[in-house]
Amino acid sequence: MDATHVSLAHGNGGRFMRELIDDCFRRYLGASLDTDLDAAPIRLPAGEVVITTDGFVVQPIEFPGGNIGSLAVHGTVNDLAVAGAEPVALTVNAILEEGVEVALVERVAAALGAAAAACGVPVVAGDTKVVGRGEGGGIYLATTGVGVRDPTLHLGLGAIEVGDQLLVSGSVGDHGTAVMLARESFGLRGDLHSDSAPLLAASRALRAVAGLRFMRDPTRGGLATVCHDVVRATGHGVRLHGPTIPVRPPVASVCAMLGYDPYYLACEGRLVAVVATAAAGAALAALRSAGCADAAIIGTVVATPPRLMLTTDLGGERFLEELEDDPLPRIC
Amino acid sequence: MDATHVSLAHGNGGRFMRELIDDCFRRYLGASLDTDLDAAPIRLPAGEVVITTDGFVVQPIEFPGGNIGSLAVHGTVNDLAVAGAEPVALTVNAILEEGVEVALVERVAAALGAAAAACGVPVVAGDTKVVGRGEGGGIYLATTGVGVRDPTLHLGLGAIEVGDQLLVSGSVGDHGTAVMLARESFGLRGDLHSDSAPLLAASRALRAVAGLRFMRDPTRGGLATVCHDVVRATGHGVRLHGPTIPVRPPVASVCAMLGYDPYYLACEGRLVAVVATAAAGAALAALRSAGCADAAIIGTVVATPPRLMLTTDLGGERFLEELEDDPLPRIC
Repeated sequence: MDATHVSLAHGNGGRFMRELIDDCFRRYLGASLDTDLDAAPIRLPAGEVVITTDGFVVQPIEFPGGNIGSLAVHGTVNDLAVAGAEPVALTVNAILEEGVEVALVERVAAALGAAAAACGVPVVAGDTKVVGRGEGGGIYLATTGVGVRDPTLHLGLGAIEVGDQLLVSGSVGDHGTAVMLARESFGLRGDLHSDSAPLLAASRALRAVAGLRFMRDPTRGGLATVCHDVVRATGHGVRLHGPTIPVRPPVASVCAMLGYDPYYLACEGRLVAVVATAAAGAALAALRSAGCADAAIIGTVVATPPRLMLTTDLGGERFLEELEDDPLPRIC
Repeated sequence: MDATHVSLAHGNGGRFMRELIDDCFRRYLGASLDTDLDAAPIRLPAGEVVITTDGFVVQPIEFPGGNIGSLAVHGTVNDLAVAGAEPVALTVNAILEEGVEVALVERVAAALGAAAAACGVPVVAGDTKVVGRGEGGGIYLATTGVGVRDPTLHLGLGAIEVGDQLLVSGSVGDHGTAVMLARESFGLRGDLHSDSAPLLAASRALRAVAGLRFMRDPTRGGLATVCHDVVRATGHGVRLHGPTIPVRPPVASVCAMLGYDPYYLACEGRLVAVVATAAAGAALAALRSAGCADAAIIGTVVATPPRLMLTTDLGGERFLEELEDDPLPRIC
């Protein structure tokens, strides 16, 4: 296409929109995207069909370790993975702001296509809208994923029992810290990258472990928010063992400097698993075999109190409250 | 919830977001929406599974005849209907702008839930994001629909032959005109309402007609853009018979005054069908039996030239070009 910036005419259903879709999306999303169809056929293997949807408004659109396109694929695939499913098809909605660079839209589409290909899942349908200047954020995406899982797999918050162990597949807070530093001009530099990545291998490895109860990816609200989900659903407590929770040193440093708690910061390539006590060792070994070198057993479900508690390095204990104010808007 | 306006904290994954989702979305979208799941199970009847996705950025958010919530359901269900499918499940993404009234979000969620219920399709999964002031448009939605169709039904642009007849299920331009007048202060009043409505009954009636080749809903770019899709895909021409195309008098008046062509304006509750010549009468009768009182046979696929032509009231003929500039941004 000739244009260097997106205009309102790219959203009108006519020739400019067709060129934008052909040159920016179909080109990178491959043959799986037939733009002449109102609805795209998908072939589902045997199993229980599940569906998930997510919006993405991350700012900046590009950050160390990815961009909104790869993030959208990982976020959606990971919601399927933690539900115990294999992804079958993705759909993508883009809401573009007038004036955004076509080259940026192309980079996002390319990252989206590459991430989907790496996960082995086709993008089968899409839509593009253009809004005026000051009515958007450059590029917003909304993705939906369809997956299929073993119908005999019974995972969920309802399966959790007192005494169960919590594991995390890797360090926490990387994505939130990387996006925050990419956005603000704190003058801070460091080895900070988003952890945005698919959780398919980790999910497959854990599904082979008898005693797996529940998996969730700690995105918005981070590890603490997943633990609060467990507390609210079970009526029991969660005790996290602070010294065992992996936090990379540059993340810990930035959080200490800026007053953030890494346990509340978004991860986009980690999962939290709850497993029966006897299965904790096997689950840890499964995660490590799936490439999660920093996986760790980090806590326990306790009968009472129905709170989230953190034991500290010094042996003390404090409550972690549910998130209220937003520490970091537009993190995913 | 206590808040009267949406704040950034409503998007953070914590307590405020949970209250917003419970009070504004789950309340109106019913028991089908389990907000404790990362991915929702769906049960698919036998048939070919199809999927479609759409973004909605209409401005104003509420207009005569609907709001962005009902529009999103109709738009998505209609993409399934024109593909010959019955809807099975919907997912919804909301991108809310900081400062938007909670009461407006509730009205949109209520309309969305009512429209989905009227179409008999559950909303099974959703997501909400909040962006800062000046980074959104109040409420944007992105919906995805899954449907199932008869695998022996072969509809598509590729099935169209020279001599085929075009039908439209009702008057054109109502949605575009109604939204335009709701947005601008032209001082014009009139009996103008969006045609936003489901096309399920019309699609079912047409599917029973032997000789049905293709259906599409003329949304962005209107009737003329669907005809251009036919021209581009077939390499043949389309001749529309102007006097037979239903345009309601207030729509024609407003278009004449403001210089818009109703054939390019969005409809959100109409379908264009292409059928074999011999089937045109049966297709028209089928549409009327499905409640489409103003349905009409409006044109013919001709061998040459590969252009869209309009015969006028006076017997003349002119070409209708493909849409380039956007006459009406944020119409759907």
